[in-house]
Amino acid sequence: MNDTLQAIAARKSVRAFEKKAIPADIKQALLEAAFQAPTAGNMMLYTILDITDPALKEALAKSCDDQPFIAEAPLVLVFLADCRRWLDSFRAAGLEPRGPGPGNALLAAADAVIAAQNVVVAAESFGLGSCYIGDILENCEDVRGMLRLPEEVIPAAMLVIGYPIKQQKERKKPARIDGRYIVFENQYELLTPEQHEQMFLDHAARDGRLNANFAGQVAALHRWKYNSAFAREMNRSAAEYLKSFAWSDDK
Amino acid sequence: MNDTLQAIAARKSVRAFEKKAIPADIKQALLEAAFQAPTAGNMMLYTILDITDPALKEALAKSCDDQPFIAEAPLVLVFLADCRRWLDSFRAAGLEPRGPGPGNALLAAADAVIAAQNVVVAAESFGLGSCYIGDILENCEDVRGMLRLPEEVIPAAMLVIGYPIKQQKERKKPARIDGRYIVFENQYELLTPEQHEQMFLDHAARDGRLNANFAGQVAALHRWKYNSAFAREMNRSAAEYLKSFAWSDDK
Repeated sequence: MNDTLQAIAARKSVRAFEKKAIPADIKQALLEAAFQAPTAGNMMLYTILDITDPALKEALAKSCDDQPFIAEAPLVLVFLADCRRWLDSFRAAGLEPRGPGPGNALLAAADAVIAAQNVVVAAESFGLGSCYIGDILENCEDVRGMLRLPEEVIPAAMLVIGYPIKQQKERKKPARIDGRYIVFENQYELLTPEQHEQMFLDHAARDGRLNANFAGQVAALHRWKYNSAFAREMNRSAAEYLKSFAWSDDK
Repeated sequence: MNDTLQAIAARKSVRAFEKKAIPADIKQALLEAAFQAPTAGNMMLYTILDITDPALKEALAKSCDDQPFIAEAPLVLVFLADCRRWLDSFRAAGLEPRGPGPGNALLAAADAVIAAQNVVVAAESFGLGSCYIGDILENCEDVRGMLRLPEEVIPAAMLVIGYPIKQQKERKKPARIDGRYIVFENQYELLTPEQHEQMFLDHAARDGRLNANFAGQVAALHRWKYNSAFAREMNRSAAEYLKSFAWSDDK
């Protein structure tokens, strides 16, 4: 296994950081890794916000489902799917562009997340831990206000980065679902209820939980991850963001 | 610069491949890099389709804005934002889950793209070239039919991968826009029309084009990338996919 594969395999979410700043040259290398990421048409359909203001970190920690560790990370980066920059370039060139549509939103979000993942892998290669904060999608109105986001911009990902404390370094990376349930040849395959149960029990066993209870634990996941207040808020908020990407040829 | 940063910096899109298969152990290592990617709640909200059928590759090459090189890639992977697998797991556990909402779609798309980018970086570390095909978002109805996609699934990214031919290896990687236009501190900043022109001319100069014409070349980009038939189709098609993610608390 080469060093790059090793960094990819070793990377796990880190949510507790040493009180130690990230040197400026390493921070610059992380941003450079973002810039070097693949990007649709070489147009860089994203903007990165480097959150340095402690009060703003606190406010984001609150709006992101109240997770205080966010405010304690030495580096907090918000990756914005940005359909505004080019719109303004088009206008500066004397054009009258249509508004962005949902395809523009998804393409820009992909660009932003691709750049973010390069930062994650680069960070790991420096011994830095990172965590994605999906909750940045929540509370559209508050986040727009705090970050001064124009309408054609969606926060696609947030990363917190820092040096992991010892306990975090030693924490076992959670096992993934077996690839045979994740990869299919040529066409999508639906699984039977029995396969769903097997998948769940296999996954639990890979993680060392040998007496997992399918119905009970899946119900708990449903409650905490899918039907929770934060998940419902994420849906409301995402719908709000997407309202600004409603362009269609039909109109 | 360590090996991982080097792989990230060196990676550029490759669109012409040697007629040489990817060894099974390397393909497995690429998929493993996907599985090891960060994933929301360790739920792996994605499915990967490994397109091995030559007729299907041809059909995808057609539906993706007619780009024949897609069919010639030894490895073609479609990364699906998959909100169906867990829905079926919930049902198998006896629950009656709500439908997915737009927040679920964006979160799953992020998961899928994060996994895809790990594959890109891992591929580079093996000397393999790759190219994202954003056009997989187009022609919703055809793609759903070809890949048998359930409604709660969106093709978030497609990757073609293979050994680059000599000309592709020697091709210069296009320069990126200067980071000062991409990264802002704390809050989003709008650029003035003059800054837009400067950004464009700087970018062109970094790429060795010293006599760039702002208005003319931006108008061309607008025509080819933003207002072209494929870009309009991508918006139509994305709207179609998102119709299946319309859940809201209001209903």
